Amino acid sequence: MGETDFISGFAKGLSVIEAFDAVNSRLSITDIARMTGLERATARRCLLTLTQLGYASYDGKFFTLTPRILRLGHSYLSSTPLPRLMQPFLDQLSEKTGESASASVLDGNEIVYIARASHKRVMSINLNPGSRLPAYCSSMGRVLLAAMSDDDAQRILEGSNRLANTPRTKTTVSDLMNEVRTVRVQGYAVIDQELEIGLCSIAIPVRNTRGMTIAAINIGAQAPRVTIEDMVQNYLPVMQSTRDTIGAVLV
Amino acid sequence: MGETDFISGFAKGLSVIEAFDAVNSRLSITDIARMTGLERATARRCLLTLTQLGYASYDGKFFTLTPRILRLGHSYLSSTPLPRLMQPFLDQLSEKTGESASASVLDGNEIVYIARASHKRVMSINLNPGSRLPAYCSSMGRVLLAAMSDDDAQRILEGSNRLANTPRTKTTVSDLMNEVRTVRVQGYAVIDQELEIGLCSIAIPVRNTRGMTIAAINIGAQAPRVTIEDMVQNYLPVMQSTRDTIGAVLV
Repeated sequence: MGETDFISGFAKGLSVIEAFDAVNSRLSITDIARMTGLERATARRCLLTLTQLGYASYDGKFFTLTPRILRLGHSYLSSTPLPRLMQPFLDQLSEKTGESASASVLDGNEIVYIARASHKRVMSINLNPGSRLPAYCSSMGRVLLAAMSDDDAQRILEGSNRLANTPRTKTTVSDLMNEVRTVRVQGYAVIDQELEIGLCSIAIPVRNTRGMTIAAINIGAQAPRVTIEDMVQNYLPVMQSTRDTIGAVLV
Repeated sequence: MGETDFISGFAKGLSVIEAFDAVNSRLSITDIARMTGLERATARRCLLTLTQLGYASYDGKFFTLTPRILRLGHSYLSSTPLPRLMQPFLDQLSEKTGESASASVLDGNEIVYIARASHKRVMSINLNPGSRLPAYCSSMGRVLLAAMSDDDAQRILEGSNRLANTPRTKTTVSDLMNEVRTVRVQGYAVIDQELEIGLCSIAIPVRNTRGMTIAAINIGAQAPRVTIEDMVQNYLPVMQSTRDTIGAVLV
């Protein structure tokens, strides 16, 4: 790809959108310039372009994103068959187990939720399609890492900000690589309160008909009520059966 | 705003992202050029930029969006206090009524879901934050139209593609404006299978402490099981009480 095939104004604009998050919901031109590393004049032009197109609003000092931004993320969710294909299976899984069921894919060192069925929240944060969690400490993340070569998985773990969310969180690359290898052999991953206290989950890979892992599905439950052993005994067979049904239709 | 304050490459790139949807999930350069009205060379540069940044993938002929695109929509959901603030109230509402509860805002002539609590699907399509429905035939849409001046509401209705989704769907601007005025007076909107057969819903506005309508919340249910009269009698009081609690914390 040649130099001229890249539209730097587009790339810069996308970095401006990504700068907004829960902590930084109202941003000035100066804030954006600092966060993105763009020059002030460029940050200003990106923000004014977003405002003119209706993706942002401006009160004279601060910019905030508008719901129109959701059209962009929705383009992926609606254009990709995977989330739509997964949803009814996750609904069934949640119905059968009485717990929340989710599907995710890897993006860098994070998992991204692409579909979810839940009628109660098991985590302190609310998860929706588009929500992200670090791969190293989530059951679906470990399943997706286990689907890679050791080298690739290790590179992602080394590049992750491996915080000890709880006293149980595995944070060293060697502990995590051992875990990834175990997951690869046993075919599922369990997380016992490594992401947050009170939350445990079990995940398995979903493979297409060519044997490639293309997503992970999991079930999350509240830890004092459900143990890891319960999950493996009661939920794993249901999940495997669901997974096989999904996998049979994935080319 | 001056001519030079607008980054046209950014604007064009965003239109390329929005071109992808359920029907158009794999697009060639020619497809994108046709759909966006961009020149072929520009469409190509936008697509290659997206690919280089990891927002799209390219198999040599077709482009598809990647999960990284979800970061953009997620910027809005995580940066806006409203969805996070609404979620626990919708969870409660869904728990109390045993039905799905949602919140949305208006974007053009569509409503955009910003939060939702549901453990079963009542519609043929699955709704998630970011999902869109036409305003003219949805209960939340009518509530949001009723919060505007007649002129503004009428302009949106005139600009809407008012399909008769079912034999019950109101499609003329005059019928819809009558409905909007009724909603404004009675303080809630009900939809009886105008969006799809088998679905009814009731919606009310959520106002901030200054009295401005900033969102709508609704409850959707299956039509043969729950009637409009049931909804008004059983769900409306619970919704109003929830709404007053939300409104009290919205500045």
